[in-house]
Formats: sequence, structure tokens, C-alpha cells
Amino acid sequence: MNSNMEKPYVVGIDIGGTNTVFGIVDARGTIIACDSIKTGSFEQAEDYVDEVCKNLLALLNANGGPEKIKGIGVGAPNGNYYNGTIEFAPNLPWKGIVPLASMFAERLGIPTALTNDANAAAIGEMTYGAARGMKDFIMITLGTGVGSGIVINGQMVYGHDGFAGELGHVIVRRERGRLCGCGRKGCLEAYCSATGVARTAREVLASHTDASLLRSIPAEDITSKDVYDAAVKGDKLAQEIFDFTGTILGEALADFIAFSSPEAIILFGGLAKSGDFIFKPVQKAIDDNVLAIFKGKTRLLMSELKDSDAAVLGASALGWEVKS
Amino acid sequence: MNSNMEKPYVVGIDIGGTNTVFGIVDARGTIIACDSIKTGSFEQAEDYVDEVCKNLLALLNANGGPEKIKGIGVGAPNGNYYNGTIEFAPNLPWKGIVPLASMFAERLGIPTALTNDANAAAIGEMTYGAARGMKDFIMITLGTGVGSGIVINGQMVYGHDGFAGELGHVIVRRERGRLCGCGRKGCLEAYCSATGVARTAREVLASHTDASLLRSIPAEDITSKDVYDAAVKGDKLAQEIFDFTGTILGEALADFIAFSSPEAIILFGGLAKSGDFIFKPVQKAIDDNVLAIFKGKTRLLMSELKDSDAAVLGASALGWEVKS
Repeated sequence: MNSNMEKPYVVGIDIGGTNTVFGIVDARGTIIACDSIKTGSFEQAEDYVDEVCKNLLALLNANGGPEKIKGIGVGAPNGNYYNGTIEFAPNLPWKGIVPLASMFAERLGIPTALTNDANAAAIGEMTYGAARGMKDFIMITLGTGVGSGIVINGQMVYGHDGFAGELGHVIVRRERGRLCGCGRKGCLEAYCSATGVARTAREVLASHTDASLLRSIPAEDITSKDVYDAAVKGDKLAQEIFDFTGTILGEALADFIAFSSPEAIILFGGLAKSGDFIFKPVQKAIDDNVLAIFKGKTRLLMSELKDSDAAVLGASALGWEVKS
Repeated sequence: MNSNMEKPYVVGIDIGGTNTVFGIVDARGTIIACDSIKTGSFEQAEDYVDEVCKNLLALLNANGGPEKIKGIGVGAPNGNYYNGTIEFAPNLPWKGIVPLASMFAERLGIPTALTNDANAAAIGEMTYGAARGMKDFIMITLGTGVGSGIVINGQMVYGHDGFAGELGHVIVRRERGRLCGCGRKGCLEAYCSATGVARTAREVLASHTDASLLRSIPAEDITSKDVYDAAVKGDKLAQEIFDFTGTILGEALADFIAFSSPEAIILFGGLAKSGDFIFKPVQKAIDDNVLAIFKGKTRLLMSELKDSDAAVLGASALGWEVKS
């Protein structure tokens, strides 16, 4: 019997600022069982891990027990793969460096690996999604922020310190760039995240006089979802906001292609679900800006993982690779 | 007897627009024997390869014969590692796609691999130079153009098509950027190559009225070497040209760090030899621009390979890896 038959499942734990979702996943990417707790309710990391383990053990015991699990993968903001730690994560309640991987491994007796959420998304896409069989691709996660996971020669790129792949913080507007949450100016994230789209909407509404459905919403309340809804209804200004966002993203992707010449760039997250409104200007900006030798070679794809499942699937995929 | 004792040498062939240099190299990076021919004298690639082989065989026969050679590495502009071809190289006499690796391998009966010159420089640095023992670093070659070779997880990054690592063509000035030889605007190469420095010199001399040693040279004749010579003599304008160049390079390097979080970035080539004139503004711009989690982590180093030897050493290093 091979080890996958003895241990046919992995566990994925996705740690978000609001919720922590965890589930048992099989080799085909089916979530067998899944549950969640509120991340923010636990001031002490010890108490938090205890609570996740208590709830996770209930799931495990109902599905053949912990001995069926090959490994646990954890996806977390500011996760460091090499150390299995989260380090100074601004949106989590625990300060400093927390050795989460070893805390889970010790309590559950199951080997555990941890990485940041965007890397987990990339591993999930490679294991169960649009990047199956690919050795060179870049995953771009477009959410509240912009994250990235880079795979080269079939391996996740962690860099010498475990923090590689922060493409949301590449500078795309060097002069007069927008202030970014990281404290610098002109980052990709300041333009192409959901919050970036909302900022663009406020700027465009202020600098144009055209009619727009968006004018019925108080400027400070506009979200990227509002912009999408207006664009679907044919609102020209909303569509221009997507063109602006997609152009900046595509210009940046053209530069990323010069780095690793990936087979595909895969977009994931809320903004990626805006379909052609974002896809078309991104593709056009790549075509207009990429170096001649790369022209037409890198495919632009949408994630094939269901949004509700992707976080747990991504984290779980790391569980297949973890060394005991 | 292991294969390194049976075959203690490799051959490096560096194909430049003007000269082709080839030599026999041992495992310590000592060039045992070396010769060169003019690249441009041969309209047909067949004739060119014949001539290189004739001269190389003379070297081989004087040093134990072809059976002492583990492999041949070729460094060439527009070299494709996967196919062993050079493809549409604008500065070489042969048009289209030329299967140089197999042409050498067939004539000499020695396994041959080929890559572009900047990748060869990176492999050379990893085998014999400043990057020995490093698994994650980026080599930047500052010559007539700006090239790069990227190593991640101890492996050269070739990308899905063999052309990865064109960091000289990342856009550093998106609005009002300088026209680059590639036909696009604002590439790193348009600012930080030797020709880029000369262009900056002409711009700075035209837009300033300050006295400068450079004013004694006809504007169109100024070279980056002239700027260096003036800077050494204390010329303020020449030093400002280096500051400008180094700042743009350092800003770009800060973005590259966000991609692969390398242990080191290694500068190579004419401009890199300008010492602190270039090193200091580059380091300052990295420190000023890099994302907080990467601050102070990536070392900026100069190549440890002698300029005259580096091309042959770099190409030869590929010879250790080639599969027969």
C-alpha cells in the first residue's frame, strides 16, 4: 500500500483576518469536511491554536481519524515557509513572530507546513486548478490587497528568506504615485486591489463631469463591487475605471514576464471575477507592452478554483508536500 | 575514477558581435588555454563553426585531447538553453534560428549546452565567483546593454521558453521614458547601460550650465568611460551622472528583490567597475525603495571574475552541467 492510500487526505487551514477556515481535502481537491472559527476572538496565539485543533479534531475523528492525514498546510498573511512562522502580520491579533506550524504539528502529531496566502493559492492552482502540469507560472491574487505566488521550474519561489513574491509592491507609478498601505508610493496594490479600484472611482468621479450610476453612492462608500455592478449595466465611467485598472495591471505583468517568462499568469480573487471588464484591458496592456521575444507566449488565465473553496484548497495542497 | 578525474576540463565559447573567445577551463576556474577568432568574418554559420572547431581542436590536442572535456558551454546573445539555438540575434551575422549547440556537439563529439551571455555570466559567478554557494541571486550585466541572469533554488531561471531574465527591458520610466533599442520606451537598459550613461551625460550637459571636464569632448563622442574618468578627477557633473544612473538602477533592483528575494545582487561589466561612483547611489536607492520586509537583507556585490576571463569562464561553467 503506498502512503497516499494509507493517508489519503490532507488538511488545509486558511488564516484570514476575520475567519479561519479549515477542511479535510482528498487528492482530487474535494473538500470532505470543513469548518471555521473567528480569528479575532483569540488574543493569545496558544488559545487560538487550541480552538482550531479542538474543532479540527472533531472533523478528523468523523472522517477516519488523524492517521488518515498526510500533512497539514497553513496559508496565512506574512507566512514564512522556511520557519513555519507568521511574522509581524498587521491584520492578525498576535504580534511579533508566531511559530504556528510547529504549534499545530505538536498538538496534532501531523507534519505541518505554512506559507503566505498568495503562495498557497498558487500551490492550490498547481495541484487542483488551472496550473495543473505547469512548471512556470505566476499567480496574482486581486483582493483587498494584491498578492502573488511565483512558480519556476515546478517549484514555489520562496527566496533566500521565505518572503519572495511580493509583486503587489512593485512600483508602477514612480512619480506622483499613490500612497500604499506599505508606506511607499506607487505600488501595484495601490491601483489594482479592490481598494485601489474604489480609489480610482473616487478620482474619476471627481475629475469627470459625465453622468454615472456611481454618483448615486456617497463617494466614500463606493466599493469595487459597485463599480462592477455599474459596468455591467453599461455605465461608461465604470468601464473606464476597469480599463484604467486593467492597463496598469497589464503593464506590470509585461514586466513580470521579462523576469521569469511564465507559461501563464493566473488571476484570482474578487476583481478577477469581473470577467472581460478586467481581462480585456489587461490582455491589451500586456500585448502593447511586452518585449518582442515574449509576445503572444504567456497565457492570461482566470483561476479555476471556486472562490469559497480556494483558500482551504490552496493551503491543503501544501500538505501533500510537507516532509515528516 | 570519477568522471571529473577522467574528464577534468570543460570548454567555454563566448560568442560576441566582434570576437568569439574560447578556452579550456579546469574545475577551479583556471583557464588552461585560450584563443579567439573574429565573429563577423563568417557569413555562413557552418563556416564559422568549422573555424572555431579547427582552432579549438588545436588547443584540445595540446592539452590531453577532446576526451578530457566533460562538456562545452556556449554563451551567445539571444541564446536559447532549451533548444541550443541562437534566435534572431541582431548583432550576429547569421539570421533566423541557428542550432549552434548541436553543430559544435556533432563536429567535436562533446556534449554542448548554450545559453545567453548574461545567464552564462551568472553560472560562471555561481561556479567560480562571488555567488559560490548561493542558491538565490541575480546577476546584472552592465555593458553596451543591460542583461541579467537569475538563479532561484540553485537553478538558472530559463522560463517556459528559454528566454527568461530580460531585466534590462523592465520599464523604469513609464511616462516620457527614453526610446530603447528594443523599440519600446523607458527600459532600464536605456538608462543604465554604457550607452545610457553617455546619453545621460549629453542630457545633463545640455540642461546645466556648470563647468565640467566633459565639455571639452564633442557631445556625440562622450562615452561612459569619459564620465568615469571625469568623476575620478572630482568633476561634479560627472558624479551627478553616476548618481542619476545608480538611483534608477537601485530603484529597479528594489523591485527585483520583491520578485525573488535574492541573497545577493551581483553587478558585472564596465559600469560595475566604476566602484563607489555607481555602488553608493545604487545601494542608497535600494535602501530607500525596497519593501520593509526585505530591508537590509539582499547584499549588493561586485563580480569576482576578471573581466577578460569572465565570458569564457561563464560559458565554460555550463559545460559542467551539460548532459551527454
